[in-house]
Amino acid sequence: MAEQIFSYPRLIQFVEAVFIKIGCSPADATTAARALLSADLRGIDSHGVARLSGYIRLWEAGRVNATPAIKITHETPSTGVVDGGSGLGLVVAPFAMQLAIDKAKNVGTGWVSVSNSNHFGIAGYHAMMALEHDMIGIAMTNASALVAPTFSIERLLGTNPICVAIPAGNEPAFVADLATTTAANGKLEILQRKNLAAPTGWIQDKDGNASNNPHELKGGGALLPLGGDREHGSHKGYALGAVVDIFSAILSGANYGPWVPPFPAYVPMPENMPGKGIGHFFGAMRIDAFRPAGEFKLHMDQWIQRFKSAKTIAGEEKVLIPGDPEREANAERLKNGIPLLNAVAQDLRDIGERFEVVL
Amino acid sequence: MAEQIFSYPRLIQFVEAVFIKIGCSPADATTAARALLSADLRGIDSHGVARLSGYIRLWEAGRVNATPAIKITHETPSTGVVDGGSGLGLVVAPFAMQLAIDKAKNVGTGWVSVSNSNHFGIAGYHAMMALEHDMIGIAMTNASALVAPTFSIERLLGTNPICVAIPAGNEPAFVADLATTTAANGKLEILQRKNLAAPTGWIQDKDGNASNNPHELKGGGALLPLGGDREHGSHKGYALGAVVDIFSAILSGANYGPWVPPFPAYVPMPENMPGKGIGHFFGAMRIDAFRPAGEFKLHMDQWIQRFKSAKTIAGEEKVLIPGDPEREANAERLKNGIPLLNAVAQDLRDIGERFEVVL
Repeated sequence: MAEQIFSYPRLIQFVEAVFIKIGCSPADATTAARALLSADLRGIDSHGVARLSGYIRLWEAGRVNATPAIKITHETPSTGVVDGGSGLGLVVAPFAMQLAIDKAKNVGTGWVSVSNSNHFGIAGYHAMMALEHDMIGIAMTNASALVAPTFSIERLLGTNPICVAIPAGNEPAFVADLATTTAANGKLEILQRKNLAAPTGWIQDKDGNASNNPHELKGGGALLPLGGDREHGSHKGYALGAVVDIFSAILSGANYGPWVPPFPAYVPMPENMPGKGIGHFFGAMRIDAFRPAGEFKLHMDQWIQRFKSAKTIAGEEKVLIPGDPEREANAERLKNGIPLLNAVAQDLRDIGERFEVVL
Repeated sequence: MAEQIFSYPRLIQFVEAVFIKIGCSPADATTAARALLSADLRGIDSHGVARLSGYIRLWEAGRVNATPAIKITHETPSTGVVDGGSGLGLVVAPFAMQLAIDKAKNVGTGWVSVSNSNHFGIAGYHAMMALEHDMIGIAMTNASALVAPTFSIERLLGTNPICVAIPAGNEPAFVADLATTTAANGKLEILQRKNLAAPTGWIQDKDGNASNNPHELKGGGALLPLGGDREHGSHKGYALGAVVDIFSAILSGANYGPWVPPFPAYVPMPENMPGKGIGHFFGAMRIDAFRPAGEFKLHMDQWIQRFKSAKTIAGEEKVLIPGDPEREANAERLKNGIPLLNAVAQDLRDIGERFEVVL
């Protein structure tokens, strides 16, 4: 696949300018651009600028409000509920995560459920906001239904990711950011573009048979929950995806299960939607609400050092700590630039032409 | 496997009496017996009375204190840290979960990390304590290392279960209780007893090769994280198990990773242990800290009804809601009794003879 390299400053200026053109305030445009580009920096190409045109189409369709009235509709000392005002999830999520952090400062932890939002980029960006405050950060979101629960042929859950970010001392932070499916949809999209077979356990066809055809979703097939099938624990991946759905949407009043609004603006909205928009859930736990942060970090360093020095299977270089690959991608791409597929680069140029923004 | 049936009242009286004989207070003996037997009722036979002799041996070895001084060593309005005084996890865990519930009553949520404890039975029992208060309950624990992280041939994590219990309205509660491995150790023990092959993806041999031999753990092999291998997302199961370890032990000052004390009393303790005992983590979130409980339950009912009525793969009766099989086992066994393997029944009779308690 032919690629072109773009520097991070060039892309972020472009994305900010485009968000301003659709009506975002400069502050919101900066927030949204940073959140979106963090995916490209961290190597999660499916969730970065490749989606910019998708966000624009949602705005055109009236499903994204560029000047949302984001409201806290209910709160207690340790909890809050946020109505995202149909704004970009890239703006609503940092607002809600900041609320969780503020509550954690006051009473030890903060937990915020969000309705009436849209896709928020990568969970990792939001969860990692907690790290600089010596807090553990948690972020999750539901998403439109692509995943069949164990034994189902219907798609009832999104890939519903969970991120947990935990500070360490001398070692880099532990950042586990994972879809609750065997494989994230982005990985399947790569196989689709390259016309390669998907490993068994990633997808099923419309009748629920295991399939290796990465195009199966277009024919009514489904992604599979982490585990793949019952014998390998798919009921656990299904349960985790369900917890994300319930925390994100039933606590907040967003849509859940098969009623979550689709990301592609051309896909019709589900009927009889029970809530508002997409839902997210955020948590922040102050380390020193449990023990002194210095002590905690000393033990985190020992944990990390022990795991990364574990004896490996022949042929494997080392045991990875969650977040290692993304952190390495981040450093490399900040330095050498972000490779975009020609099709994605062209997509951005088309957006630039339309909004008169130079890429 | 030959079995004998025992009524629940008969078993709980027996277990209570045995705990009193080793020195537990009557109240603690009742708490511990209820927590232990909840596993047998819910069909998780590996974690119930089959482990009673194991707990007794830990007490004999001086690793379980029957009259622990359980202490809250640190707290904020929404958090607490508990030192379990080396008590039975079956007693320490309900104490800590109650603390989380009390904090949730005051400030919306409560989060408690526990050190210096022992095995606590099933996570589900503790998480479900929250349900009657219209709260979501969360329970997790670390355990001695049987699981190899992705790419590792060393066992560095326990099966580290997570339970999330969520109240519903007319529908039964949603209770997801899962080991963060492809298969719980109890399922492997069943295959060992019956000399049956384990499915690929459950275990690896001492060199990290996939294996179907359920006895592989005795030869230095390992259980595998949920996902099985890298291609099927084992790095996600590893990350989840790691989060459980860190929340349970590094927040509290318990042992973590390969240093978690083993359950069998004859296995020597690890060297250079960094903390005290085993660690747990509990959470309670008041539903009405987010939205009115009645509204929430209405939507939970709709969620559950939609999922359980999903179209199924040919040959499968229905899509299960997490907790369904355990709740059905609970009702059936309360009515018809709890089947115990002859070897387990004999083990209990031996305990009864020794402590002069009639089974």
